Amino acid sequence: MARAWHLKYRPEGLPTADNFEIRDVDLPKLKDGELRVRNRWLSVDPYMRGRMNDVKSYVPPFAIDAPLEGGAIGEVVESKDKGFAKGDLVLHMAGWRDEAVIAAKTALKLPDLGVDPQQFLGVLGVTGATAFFGLLDAASAKKGDTVFVSAAAGAVGSVVVQIAKAKSMTVIGSAGDKDKCDFVKSLGADAVINYRGGPILRGLAAAVKEQGGDGIDVYFDNVGGDHLDAAFALAKPNARFAICGMIEGYNKAGPSSFRFIMRVIAMRIRMQGFIVFDYQSRMDEFYKAMGAMLKSGQVKSEETIVDGLDSTPEAFLGLFKGTNTGKMLVRL
Amino acid sequence: MARAWHLKYRPEGLPTADNFEIRDVDLPKLKDGELRVRNRWLSVDPYMRGRMNDVKSYVPPFAIDAPLEGGAIGEVVESKDKGFAKGDLVLHMAGWRDEAVIAAKTALKLPDLGVDPQQFLGVLGVTGATAFFGLLDAASAKKGDTVFVSAAAGAVGSVVVQIAKAKSMTVIGSAGDKDKCDFVKSLGADAVINYRGGPILRGLAAAVKEQGGDGIDVYFDNVGGDHLDAAFALAKPNARFAICGMIEGYNKAGPSSFRFIMRVIAMRIRMQGFIVFDYQSRMDEFYKAMGAMLKSGQVKSEETIVDGLDSTPEAFLGLFKGTNTGKMLVRL
Repeated sequence: MARAWHLKYRPEGLPTADNFEIRDVDLPKLKDGELRVRNRWLSVDPYMRGRMNDVKSYVPPFAIDAPLEGGAIGEVVESKDKGFAKGDLVLHMAGWRDEAVIAAKTALKLPDLGVDPQQFLGVLGVTGATAFFGLLDAASAKKGDTVFVSAAAGAVGSVVVQIAKAKSMTVIGSAGDKDKCDFVKSLGADAVINYRGGPILRGLAAAVKEQGGDGIDVYFDNVGGDHLDAAFALAKPNARFAICGMIEGYNKAGPSSFRFIMRVIAMRIRMQGFIVFDYQSRMDEFYKAMGAMLKSGQVKSEETIVDGLDSTPEAFLGLFKGTNTGKMLVRL
Repeated sequence: MARAWHLKYRPEGLPTADNFEIRDVDLPKLKDGELRVRNRWLSVDPYMRGRMNDVKSYVPPFAIDAPLEGGAIGEVVESKDKGFAKGDLVLHMAGWRDEAVIAAKTALKLPDLGVDPQQFLGVLGVTGATAFFGLLDAASAKKGDTVFVSAAAGAVGSVVVQIAKAKSMTVIGSAGDKDKCDFVKSLGADAVINYRGGPILRGLAAAVKEQGGDGIDVYFDNVGGDHLDAAFALAKPNARFAICGMIEGYNKAGPSSFRFIMRVIAMRIRMQGFIVFDYQSRMDEFYKAMGAMLKSGQVKSEETIVDGLDSTPEAFLGLFKGTNTGKMLVRL
């Protein structure tokens, strides 16, 4: 018997604890090629909100009355696949529950990089790869660029800040309170804007000026809305925007308004939406580069940890309130 | 003595005839390296509206109480430059007037391609180059793509439609009345949407379905606003948008709203703003390719002609009412 969080009904707007229900589930007997894993760490991510809507997207929607899914690190407790042994730690997608039976081919044995296993849900996982490929590929960011990163204290943003500094860029971050701004500063950002302290456009203009520049070359967008509009307003010629997330829009039905979108033309802005899964074939390059940056101390893993399976919805909902600094994780 | 249209005061919102005043101007005596030209054709273009605002952009704003500028074809009536002789036809920027004294280095003697001279203001000029480089470079459009073109009966749009058909793409255009839709159809478009006949999103969805497709690969944006939002809504994975103009926003102060901009992420949309002047170094490539398409009849020059210098503001204002089909020109 396992316990798994189910989607009870689809949220409209901001989800609440009521959308989720924990239920007992029977685990089937293992067949050949399957593993039984006991989860140690669960990942909660903003993109999961999208899967709670009944719309076609790059991942299928969650089904009602079925266990939710998500990245997880588990320990193999029983194996019917010769590639895995009892005690192996694996990365897989049967999160939001304490125990699961999974196909061995959907599990990745953690490579031995001498790091804590939960880092494969964070800086060495989808989160870190999103930061890495978004900044360096989608936005073509390079040495000397001035980079604006929204939600810079978040899981992805905090890694973007560190990679950008490791590559000799000027970094301006935004975050939602003083503690987070201090955290972003501690990651090496040259300037940090508290976006709850006034219009983000005013804050960004001041930060740009303070850095002695006259605009931004790169915007890494995790937020959308006013942040994106401020980036339009302050983009330099040939600026590149990596559009990674628009958390501001995930929970609202209404449109987003932009006063400065027309600058896309005059400034020849390139906006590139991207999904980390498109970079699957380049993960070796990522492990190598990120492993080196971790080893050298240029990138540090930052986590907010919530304990216990029962707290999973709380951890997930916290993403939209901004209660996390760095990667949000549930420890079982 | 010459007559030249001056900007009397800056428009707010839609310009009116009252913003312009025709005044007599003295022409200075020719110095070495200068030409006196009598204009035969004047170009009016949507981008000129931007220059009427007092804001920094890719071209400096027009000055108050000074003659307006714009592309023109003139005949040299006096030359103090050995590169030009009386009777030469030249392309230059001292439009909005009947006669001008210009530096010879700012004039281009029309290459002898056996075409009417005014085509160098249209399909063989900035207009045609905008269509050519926007479609094939900024949007990377290629054979087999489904291309959506807004303002498809306009100067740039009508050339985009023809190039796209010449390159074996499926073309869906939009235009603002039945006559224009018929015109776009006559250019070879596979489907045409009358955007005054209902929401553009509904029209585009129907056109896409009618073509047996499930979305668009390329959007050539001349309009912004609801057209751009419909393109977000119906973009296929890895769609490319060339952002050429947003005429819907040129005369309004308020923001533009988008319901579907978040699809930039899921569909990995690339939006690329561009300015034709950035392709200056590739004009030979353009003359060669466009010259061949004109000769073969794959591209035809389409013009709306207004007669007389006095009608120049009327021609310009007509751009925003959509009174032109193809390139809007003033004939002197």
